[in-house]
Amino acid sequence: MMNSFDFQAKTEIYFGKGREEEVGKILKKHNAKNILIVIGKKSVIKSGLLGRVTHSLEGENITYHILQGVRANPTFDLVREGNKMVIENQIDFILAIGGGSVIDTAKCIAATTYYSGDIKDFNLHKASPTSALPVGVILTIAAAGSEMSASCVIQDDETEIKLGFLSDLIRPVFAIENPELTYSVNKEQTAYGVVDILMHTFERYFSYSDKNELADEFALGLLKNVVEVGLIAYNEPENYDARARIMLDSTISHNGYTSIGKKYVFPVHALEHAVSGRFANIAHGCGLAILFPGWAERYYIYDIDKFARLGRHVFGIKETKKKEAALKCIKAFKSYFKKLGMPSRLSEVGVKESDIDALADIVSGKGSKVVDHHCHPLDRETAKEIYLKVL
Amino acid sequence: MMNSFDFQAKTEIYFGKGREEEVGKILKKHNAKNILIVIGKKSVIKSGLLGRVTHSLEGENITYHILQGVRANPTFDLVREGNKMVIENQIDFILAIGGGSVIDTAKCIAATTYYSGDIKDFNLHKASPTSALPVGVILTIAAAGSEMSASCVIQDDETEIKLGFLSDLIRPVFAIENPELTYSVNKEQTAYGVVDILMHTFERYFSYSDKNELADEFALGLLKNVVEVGLIAYNEPENYDARARIMLDSTISHNGYTSIGKKYVFPVHALEHAVSGRFANIAHGCGLAILFPGWAERYYIYDIDKFARLGRHVFGIKETKKKEAALKCIKAFKSYFKKLGMPSRLSEVGVKESDIDALADIVSGKGSKVVDHHCHPLDRETAKEIYLKVL
Repeated sequence: MMNSFDFQAKTEIYFGKGREEEVGKILKKHNAKNILIVIGKKSVIKSGLLGRVTHSLEGENITYHILQGVRANPTFDLVREGNKMVIENQIDFILAIGGGSVIDTAKCIAATTYYSGDIKDFNLHKASPTSALPVGVILTIAAAGSEMSASCVIQDDETEIKLGFLSDLIRPVFAIENPELTYSVNKEQTAYGVVDILMHTFERYFSYSDKNELADEFALGLLKNVVEVGLIAYNEPENYDARARIMLDSTISHNGYTSIGKKYVFPVHALEHAVSGRFANIAHGCGLAILFPGWAERYYIYDIDKFARLGRHVFGIKETKKKEAALKCIKAFKSYFKKLGMPSRLSEVGVKESDIDALADIVSGKGSKVVDHHCHPLDRETAKEIYLKVL
Repeated sequence: MMNSFDFQAKTEIYFGKGREEEVGKILKKHNAKNILIVIGKKSVIKSGLLGRVTHSLEGENITYHILQGVRANPTFDLVREGNKMVIENQIDFILAIGGGSVIDTAKCIAATTYYSGDIKDFNLHKASPTSALPVGVILTIAAAGSEMSASCVIQDDETEIKLGFLSDLIRPVFAIENPELTYSVNKEQTAYGVVDILMHTFERYFSYSDKNELADEFALGLLKNVVEVGLIAYNEPENYDARARIMLDSTISHNGYTSIGKKYVFPVHALEHAVSGRFANIAHGCGLAILFPGWAERYYIYDIDKFARLGRHVFGIKETKKKEAALKCIKAFKSYFKKLGMPSRLSEVGVKESDIDALADIVSGKGSKVVDHHCHPLDRETAKEIYLKVL
């Protein structure tokens, strides 16, 4: 029977060429007067984007401070730095210019600055935020979907563990999305993004559904769209339409619509966070591309119909024997990831057989917990089996 | 090329059994202290729903006034009455308990009370709202989708014309959706609702699309879902799951996701508003069920691919000749409407041949305007042709 649920996805989207020049007006509408801008290393400075943004802010008399240096798989260090800047400068709004790492850093600063406990509490699920500063986004890569999600993933460098939490309080107030800003995203990063968008949607789709689930129809539609345009964006970096569509796909893939009314768990993400948490050189999207086929080949037997339906909708696979159809679907995604230049084995990205036990320990809390996937829980043993399968 | 666009769909959804009992808490969260409750005739009183709501309000010390008497195809009279009550009682929040007519009345009151011009200005597109009181909804019928839409349609009894406007300012703050509240909706009204939900989605789907349009994938998915569960809800009024799914479909059908990034026009709605505006006995959903096939048979030649794709996705029509596939799709919907007990001719609901010129005049502003559908504009002549076709 259909679940009871609460739902909202309030982020305002401002989509199209040049929209970042409206950021001052949009912030003013939301009563921002003194903002913290969070950015990565240097690319938004070099590209001139930051200059256009500050020009727009100055036009509306909005003052700003800049927190620079967010890295991929972002850490708590910069969150602490952000906390200080917010307090010292009486910041009333946080603007993230970047992708998932920058946005998640901004969200974590927003939720933790005025929280009296430890800044890791939310990520460790020891507490939930009760308030947060508003966050806005200027998106520069189609990937994480953090621009419209309630999610925040931060890396704990001490333990090498990536930790995530969900709260509607950190869902961005607005996302400015100019597809042209993603023209400079290189092929590799574009591919990682495509994989990440697919995976947010896979994990929702493969979570338990009732019959006639609207969410599943949306998930299938989104997956088909991503597969179609993702490869075009990968091969034609300045194809506006492909960049635009994958950007919108990114935003919708993680805002809740592809799981509306459903409960969901993210077993492949859990497997991957263990990997990129321990191996900082491995991009999240890269890890997902390697691990999904391993997970799928282990789990498809529990949900053959859904794999068959996915293959039919996305790749037009007409095989009527369901098991064969499901396997063809997995094969088609493996081949798709290959076209995106993704590696298919953990050993290709530096993971050794001797690392596998440690990864399985991380996913399973040394065997003490399982990711409670509806069709078959992901425990230490199964995690190890999957890691070894794709080593 | 993909359009630039602004998008938001901020309504909070509280979905599930008994959720109406939380209305006091939800209103309190939104700082409501003194509200106007808008209802229809008597059913929400008789059913005990109003009593449960006022009990919840009293628990949170929220005071209320009640505006009763909204009819189907609601008029400006009650809006004026609401305007007075808002001012006299210093109302800070409007709660609609009902379906589209009640919600649209609440929205119109919210937008017009403190507007200095005429209350018909927004509906006549002479002006746009710049502010509005917040509106919340307890939904009692799955149909109009007004619970999460920016739309407000009111009837002008003087001119017999139904007029609509769009503004994000009137998009409800929250919608409480308890499927059990719709168990008592009779078969006829259930069917009208199903048709209305389909039509909001058809009109978006058949509006011009680029290739790889995510919105079209969502529209197809929603249409398939509605067709599947609509008939179950029609035949099994106390089937919780069917009532729940059609309720969620209603909400999503008009909140913007099935047209995200697209421009759209509503030619069949325009044809129908002329009919139910003039013939108050004809329900909106009934008029749509009669008019859609007439419109489709006239227009499918301009967009054969889309009709074929729709038939394939929703009804599994495998016909490979596109024109035949498109015609089979239209036929399948006609047959579906029949299963929902819908009439198929205007003459069955009291429209005479001598009325057709007047209807064509209303749609076309006596020939002065056309509904600018991308594939072929709907002018006076085409409107008349369609009306005569389904007479």
